Amino acid sequence: MTSASATSIKDDYRDLYQDLSQIYKRKIKPLETTYNFQSFHSAPLTESDIFAKPMVLLLGQYSTGKTTFIRHLIEGDYPGAHIGVEPTTDRFVAVMGGSESRVIPGNAAAVSADLPFRGLDQFGQAFLTRFQVSQCPSSVLENMTLIDSPGILAGTKQRVDRGYDFTKAIGWFAERSDLILLFFDSHKLDISDEFKAAIMSLKGQEEKVRVILNKSDMVDQQQLMRVYGAMMWSLGKVIHTPEVVRVYLSSFWITRPSNAFEDCRALIEREQADLLKEMRDLPRNAAIRKVNEIVKRARLARVHAYIIGHLRREMPAIFGKKSRQKELIRDLPVEFTKIQQMHNVPAGDFPDLTTFRNQLEGHQFDNFAKIREPILTMAEEALSIDLPRIMQRFPQNNPLLELSQ
Amino acid sequence: MTSASATSIKDDYRDLYQDLSQIYKRKIKPLETTYNFQSFHSAPLTESDIFAKPMVLLLGQYSTGKTTFIRHLIEGDYPGAHIGVEPTTDRFVAVMGGSESRVIPGNAAAVSADLPFRGLDQFGQAFLTRFQVSQCPSSVLENMTLIDSPGILAGTKQRVDRGYDFTKAIGWFAERSDLILLFFDSHKLDISDEFKAAIMSLKGQEEKVRVILNKSDMVDQQQLMRVYGAMMWSLGKVIHTPEVVRVYLSSFWITRPSNAFEDCRALIEREQADLLKEMRDLPRNAAIRKVNEIVKRARLARVHAYIIGHLRREMPAIFGKKSRQKELIRDLPVEFTKIQQMHNVPAGDFPDLTTFRNQLEGHQFDNFAKIREPILTMAEEALSIDLPRIMQRFPQNNPLLELSQ
Ligand SMILES: Nc1ncnc2c1ncn2[C@@H]1O[C@H](COP(=O)(O)OP(=O)(O)OP(=O)(O)O)[C@@H](O)[C@H]1O
Ligand SMILES: Nc1ncnc2c1ncn2[C@@H]1O[C@H](COP(=O)(O)OP(=O)(O)OP(=O)(O)O)[C@@H](O)[C@H]1O
Ligand SMILES: [Mg+2]
Ligand SMILES: [Mg+2]
Repeated sequence: MTSASATSIKDDYRDLYQDLSQIYKRKIKPLETTYNFQSFHSAPLTESDIFAKPMVLLLGQYSTGKTTFIRHLIEGDYPGAHIGVEPTTDRFVAVMGGSESRVIPGNAAAVSADLPFRGLDQFGQAFLTRFQVSQCPSSVLENMTLIDSPGILAGTKQRVDRGYDFTKAIGWFAERSDLILLFFDSHKLDISDEFKAAIMSLKGQEEKVRVILNKSDMVDQQQLMRVYGAMMWSLGKVIHTPEVVRVYLSSFWITRPSNAFEDCRALIEREQADLLKEMRDLPRNAAIRKVNEIVKRARLARVHAYIIGHLRREMPAIFGKKSRQKELIRDLPVEFTKIQQMHNVPAGDFPDLTTFRNQLEGHQFDNFAKIREPILTMAEEALSIDLPRIMQRFPQNNPLLELSQ
Repeated sequence: MTSASATSIKDDYRDLYQDLSQIYKRKIKPLETTYNFQSFHSAPLTESDIFAKPMVLLLGQYSTGKTTFIRHLIEGDYPGAHIGVEPTTDRFVAVMGGSESRVIPGNAAAVSADLPFRGLDQFGQAFLTRFQVSQCPSSVLENMTLIDSPGILAGTKQRVDRGYDFTKAIGWFAERSDLILLFFDSHKLDISDEFKAAIMSLKGQEEKVRVILNKSDMVDQQQLMRVYGAMMWSLGKVIHTPEVVRVYLSSFWITRPSNAFEDCRALIEREQADLLKEMRDLPRNAAIRKVNEIVKRARLARVHAYIIGHLRREMPAIFGKKSRQKELIRDLPVEFTKIQQMHNVPAGDFPDLTTFRNQLEGHQFDNFAKIREPILTMAEEALSIDLPRIMQRFPQNNPLLELSQ
């Protein structure tokens, strides 16, 4: 089996992703390439972007049990896994499914077209030597990719040692993840400033964050309440949303430690079951989210095409190109309004004015593509027929569904 | 028995308070009256100030079980107590010990020399009709005074209805209390903006605050964790101290509700026992705190005497009084430094410069008393011999003791 299998998705959603990929390639991507969407927004999606499995990012201070949790989930060690009381995991590890166990080093992973990690080279060599993909056979990994991460240390040591921007790297993974698990240890709760900084860097991703208060059976019930309360107290100060973050009490181990307390066992088991259920639901929710993202992307590509086509049409045939272009940039708000009225596009679909204006500076408007109706019609079709049809394949009453409409 | 009994203190501390009162009256108060301490700082302490029992303030939204908690403690209703699902307690009630049950209305209580409520008239008639003292026989009340308070409502209703400044009144009681119990209801946790404002008004008193998550058996264990977490999350945002506030899970009722959950009974009972123990320790801690306060007061009275005596000495015998006084006020920092060096007083003992300067404006320095060594010597004696001797009567290893040194 080749590494392509690492990107294969569970059967339930394979057809759906196939269709999604077809719709994108045939009806949306042409619009993007024609109007140079890439240089204003982002590169076209690849197969591996669309087929990428839901990603779960594990974060926390060192020795909170992140790697042990993965061992618990996949019922074994991933290649290169280290578990221990000292800071052990020294790198980011993307734990992915595969027919056999093997390690793909960071540099190789970051250039591989069928892995969704090509953006990581921006963090440089120091990062790439601290990143790897670990493949191994596991039914859990057929449905998701787990990102194990180096435990966060306290004090200045950390900042000196790492040669890359740790917080930014976390941000990169967080943005692409469907779930972010923040690990805490009930046994030695102390939230370092570094960890706080890491949590703050999840700003905007709060709805993906779940807190795992792990090793909950290493303290007795009354202590557990105290620790849990102290954690919520501190988190409330760091995470600035009014909604309370969802916390799961847990203690994921392979063999029960002999000094484990039993007085909260039933509660812990219920909580663990709730977490695992949420993880089982990931593929469906991730699929819905992906359709949703593509809808958003298509709408943006459509308005982008209108803007570019409009600016092109406003250019004179021969003389005064330069000054006309200047004028158009200056009057961009007016042009936006014209486009809005002409094509009946909601104002909310337009890109940020200032950013867009700056981006325009580097271009020559008379090189822009003209409005080409057939290409736009295809994208319209995707938006009004194909994508809604895909949405209908999901069971109803899903809160994410409403979100996507 | 007369209402004087309301101020009597439990035997263990009666002697100590007697001695404290004697020391204050004979060695510190003369210094205060000679140098007009009152018009710069505060009125001389009365017997009832010194003998006042530790005060416990109960605060919380309505129907959280504050009045029921008092019933639980004193094993009966205080005169005028109302318990019910609707907002019931409509006033501040000082629940105090007494040989028989009786109510002293707010107006009478606020003028009574042997009750510690004379400052309350500042809140006006609207408040005094909403304040009462309820005396009743109870061994618990021999050791402390409980302040029941009207439940805090949400929305605008409250602000319209009350004719007095609720938050300020809370502040008044909070300052004089030894313990502030914030009641929450696990069954319907919702922290209104009014309640938040009330909590914020406890600023500076945070170390006295304990949180009671009451009716903890009205939800099951997993819900209790959620509610507790949500409460800590919100509290962490409102109380700006890094130390986590101490929370007690509890459910104080007289007869167990038939729908009570039992899965956390043992925990709740342990927690309740911890709270009651903390309340039992109140008299000792309150006594230590009182000695501490009198030490602080004596030091301030001493430096005050030096300042007043110094300013008096600097005044000319006959001519140029007015301009000299102006000069002295202008050069106050220099004069403070002189006094500091002359009498070897720590800078931290001095009053706030700006406030003091403003206060001086209203006085004529040549009316000030001259330095009279015997009076100062007595106060020195109190500070160096008598008060430390009282401190020695407390058992060692008390954290409050260290604080007081
Ligand atoms: N549920 C648990 N109960 C008790 N001990 C645990 C539990 N989970 C993990 N441990 C122990 O805690 C230590 C740290 O575990 P692990 O290496 O999985 O943590 P980690 O978060 O991956 O640490 P790092 O950040 O250093 O990689 C190990 O000794 C492990 O056996
Ligand atoms: N531990 C408990 N478990 C269940 N119900 C309780 C408990 N404590 C009190 N209650 C019920 O809650 C209601 C409110 O109680 P109570 O009047 O003591 O609250 P309160 O905080 O004093 O309210 P208010 O602020 O209106 O004076 C009553 O019906 C009471 O029986
Ligand atoms: Mg690890
Ligand atoms: Mg009440």
